[in-house]
Amino acid sequence: MSLWTYAPPLKDIRFVIERVLEAPSAWAATPAHADLDMDTAAQVIAEAGRFAADVLAPLNAAADLEGCSLADGTVRTPAGFARAYQDFVDGGWPALTCSPEWGGQGLPILLDAALREMVSACNHAWGMYPDLLHGAYETLRSHASEELKDRYLPRIASGQWLAAMALTEPQAGSDLGLIRTRAEPRQDGSVRVSGDKIFISGGDHDLSDNIVHLVLCRLPDAAPGTKGLSLVLVPKILPDGSRNALACTGLEKKMGLKGSATCAMRYEQATGWIVGAPGKGLAAMFVMMNSARLHVGLQGLGHQEMATQNAVRYALDRTQGRLAGAPATAPIARHPAVRRTLLRLQALTEGQRVIAYRAAHWLDAAAAHPDPAQRARAAGLAGLLTPVVKAFLTHHGFHGASAALQVFGGYGYVHEFGIEQSVRDARIAMIYEGTNEIQAIDLLQRKVLADGGLVLAQLLDDMRAEALRCGAVPVLNDFALALADQARQVEQATAALRAGAATDPEWPLRVADDYLMGLAHALLAWSFAASARAAAELPDRAWAEAKTARMRFGLQWILPDSLPCWQRVNAPANALEEVGASE
Amino acid sequence: MSLWTYAPPLKDIRFVIERVLEAPSAWAATPAHADLDMDTAAQVIAEAGRFAADVLAPLNAAADLEGCSLADGTVRTPAGFARAYQDFVDGGWPALTCSPEWGGQGLPILLDAALREMVSACNHAWGMYPDLLHGAYETLRSHASEELKDRYLPRIASGQWLAAMALTEPQAGSDLGLIRTRAEPRQDGSVRVSGDKIFISGGDHDLSDNIVHLVLCRLPDAAPGTKGLSLVLVPKILPDGSRNALACTGLEKKMGLKGSATCAMRYEQATGWIVGAPGKGLAAMFVMMNSARLHVGLQGLGHQEMATQNAVRYALDRTQGRLAGAPATAPIARHPAVRRTLLRLQALTEGQRVIAYRAAHWLDAAAAHPDPAQRARAAGLAGLLTPVVKAFLTHHGFHGASAALQVFGGYGYVHEFGIEQSVRDARIAMIYEGTNEIQAIDLLQRKVLADGGLVLAQLLDDMRAEALRCGAVPVLNDFALALADQARQVEQATAALRAGAATDPEWPLRVADDYLMGLAHALLAWSFAASARAAAELPDRAWAEAKTARMRFGLQWILPDSLPCWQRVNAPANALEEVGASE
Repeated sequence: MSLWTYAPPLKDIRFVIERVLEAPSAWAATPAHADLDMDTAAQVIAEAGRFAADVLAPLNAAADLEGCSLADGTVRTPAGFARAYQDFVDGGWPALTCSPEWGGQGLPILLDAALREMVSACNHAWGMYPDLLHGAYETLRSHASEELKDRYLPRIASGQWLAAMALTEPQAGSDLGLIRTRAEPRQDGSVRVSGDKIFISGGDHDLSDNIVHLVLCRLPDAAPGTKGLSLVLVPKILPDGSRNALACTGLEKKMGLKGSATCAMRYEQATGWIVGAPGKGLAAMFVMMNSARLHVGLQGLGHQEMATQNAVRYALDRTQGRLAGAPATAPIARHPAVRRTLLRLQALTEGQRVIAYRAAHWLDAAAAHPDPAQRARAAGLAGLLTPVVKAFLTHHGFHGASAALQVFGGYGYVHEFGIEQSVRDARIAMIYEGTNEIQAIDLLQRKVLADGGLVLAQLLDDMRAEALRCGAVPVLNDFALALADQARQVEQATAALRAGAATDPEWPLRVADDYLMGLAHALLAWSFAASARAAAELPDRAWAEAKTARMRFGLQWILPDSLPCWQRVNAPANALEEVGASE
Repeated sequence: MSLWTYAPPLKDIRFVIERVLEAPSAWAATPAHADLDMDTAAQVIAEAGRFAADVLAPLNAAADLEGCSLADGTVRTPAGFARAYQDFVDGGWPALTCSPEWGGQGLPILLDAALREMVSACNHAWGMYPDLLHGAYETLRSHASEELKDRYLPRIASGQWLAAMALTEPQAGSDLGLIRTRAEPRQDGSVRVSGDKIFISGGDHDLSDNIVHLVLCRLPDAAPGTKGLSLVLVPKILPDGSRNALACTGLEKKMGLKGSATCAMRYEQATGWIVGAPGKGLAAMFVMMNSARLHVGLQGLGHQEMATQNAVRYALDRTQGRLAGAPATAPIARHPAVRRTLLRLQALTEGQRVIAYRAAHWLDAAAAHPDPAQRARAAGLAGLLTPVVKAFLTHHGFHGASAALQVFGGYGYVHEFGIEQSVRDARIAMIYEGTNEIQAIDLLQRKVLADGGLVLAQLLDDMRAEALRCGAVPVLNDFALALADQARQVEQATAALRAGAATDPEWPLRVADDYLMGLAHALLAWSFAASARAAAELPDRAWAEAKTARMRFGLQWILPDSLPCWQRVNAPANALEEVGASE
């Protein structure tokens, strides 16, 4: 048995796209995607899977040991990273979803979701470099001047130049209003940027000739807080070919993701150009917020898939201990405690794949559906789902990798078995792009309560429609009932919160984490039900029955995890004292 | 603010020992401990806390970076480890609980629990070296010949020589019946040991002149399986001063605990002496099982305490974001989501301290209570609690450290803030000394179901006695009710399982993990109630009220976590299919 390999889950990915989400019919009704059919999409995904498994996976463990290095202000990435990136560019992958207007392929975000899941599964650290590219592309496309667009967009879309987002400063982490980096306007329309940034992923590296930094900073007369922030494009190499005045001053020594250069950057009168309106820097960045958070959620999904399939292979191979009544030692996959862990990992991974891909599919509809009302509806639903995808999938990316590690026993703690690296790499995704606690507040305050519950009602409508569909298949009655019950719990808790928040505005803040987890389980129930319903129609009965069994396992063994969440959400009198150091 | 420091939780430790467990009155009634009073005990604990905080904590982060090295079959430990160990020996710490007959101090295991918690909190890797000493001491004291005892026990009790337990082989992890290492008897009564062992903590190092290996192996005519195992003492240095034929052949590259040498060992006709009867090797090792598993649980507790107090200090210092209605940025400790995380960490840590110390206190009674019936009762209760302490405390050692990491945001992912090392170090404790899944099966099958529920009934009696005590204090009525409710849930689920297992013997194996977690929450409820009751009698009202508030937080916010556990335990019809690779 070879250690730590990746078999792209092509069959399940196709099943989710084609049967659960029924995306091909949506593509056919969408002019921008009308040329796309499922077989073409499947070919793209299979090719992406080959790239991830054959090119990226073999680099992952060695890159963890080698890490990045910094000499004379220049970062060197681990062996093979630059070559793999050239292959990625040559394969046209950076431009997958970019507009044909800027040299992109204009394919659905849904296919990009599959690509990102597989890249993250095989090499999260490497994936960090191209990950930022699409956010920069979207930001520039929506907010940059025509001149800046002409100069930068085609080369960002193609991946020839990579991008970095420079937000965080030592005193400004979750609270961007504390940012101090200054931008001074010059007569020629450019600005000079000065300041120190930290935690800049890919702030410097050797993968591309140029790196386009998008830097949040303040103009001299800026208001305090987030309203005073402007976004400035600061390229590593200036249009005249000279080196700009920015440098990597240090690399963080991190728990994991060691192949990804996390840079401290210093800008010393670096030349840049404002993107969008002065003082509207944060608004310009919000453009990419939903997709960036979806991408982070997909990292969590990738880790779960990789951890799950390797734990299953190991457990089917490793024999240890006897089963009751059996004469010889058995593969550990047959022991009930291990079986339960593996089935839980499989059901969680597959259920969350449906959630994430659903969000991606809604983002496609929000961008390209011919009906403006449907675009607005899909945008609302994608916005609602995004914080759940980010927080829930990264939570299980880490905890799922840890559960898989447990299957390996003592070997799980040893580097050469691969899984301990997954645990370390997966941990960051619960923090960056807005901590999971910030996602929960975004969900409950901004996405659920702020609009009076309109978008949530649409989500529950869709869930109940699936419950009805499922209920029409007699053997799936348990799925229909569970889904309807979950929707009811979400609805009741939301109504209670809305009423109670009027007199106790802190209540939603106290229970936001639980609310997100509760809603996530309702979405899982939807995934389980929709997958079982779609499987019932499949000609491949063996595959369909195994899928249904895993989804039913999820119903019985995973959905109860939301019980304490709703109990806490529904307990407004629970105290939450101020914290002091205990002795 | 200095990073990653340790303030020994002396006040809480004393509170648990003196007020919650009321240990001093038990000591007074026990001849072996009649000389001990609380002030003396508190001095011992304070001294241990100083050693941990001042000597061990400063070495921890550097040792993680340096790791151990192997050259010419000899292991070098990180800078400062050997010197710290000499201080530990000079302070008399190894012999704390050893019998005065063998040069020990004969103090209660309860005080040793406090020592071990604090050592693990400050430097888990360093603590691995002396950790094995006491198990070897107990095994030899109970099973070795007088000659072996005279030769080895005094120098093991004093810590002059350290010990290693050599059990695991590549094909024999959780299943020791698969062990292949051979022992061939010689005419002089010695044996020659040949074979390869892996994962041997402290198999070689530079902390002591000699290392006493206890090696599980097979005599030539041994039965297959665990019945054929014998335990052999194999010293690194033979009595004549020559080097024995054993060597470290490799060090594992691990996720954490890098200062602890995890050795692959080769024994090539190494000289040893059988401990106990041939073929009774496993029985000889069972002597130390309860205390070794308690020690691992205390490692989990130490990690939680260290993570919690550092997260609290960081959160009180770091300002970020505004609170509703407040004009300026606030310490993150005041934000509801962070407050909740910190209170959860505090309540879990303090609640689990009571559980672990209770087990230690019962081990003392089992060893030294003047009444044989009380000794037997305490031994049964300690045996029942042991797998819970091991699994539950190490679960939260890892997950608590991860929750604390989240409080640090991006800094949590960076080595210099200390917490990411805690997450890595804490992970192993869920695996070694019997995986947590094995603990759950041990609890349910061997400790709860095998005796018809006698010991469990005694546990529930004790819990209900506390509920009555608590119920007599009107303001603590919620604690009394919650504790009684938890006891009832344990009782009902156990009765259902006992009845159902007759026709579905796999049922307990499917739900053992949940049963352990459910029972652990009942024990937490007992901790919360007993602590609140004891606090009610304290003269220091400010401290008592803060303690009660944390315990009430646990009641309201933590106990609901057992709901899904009991729901799954009580669902015998839940399916658990065989696992295959999904596609």
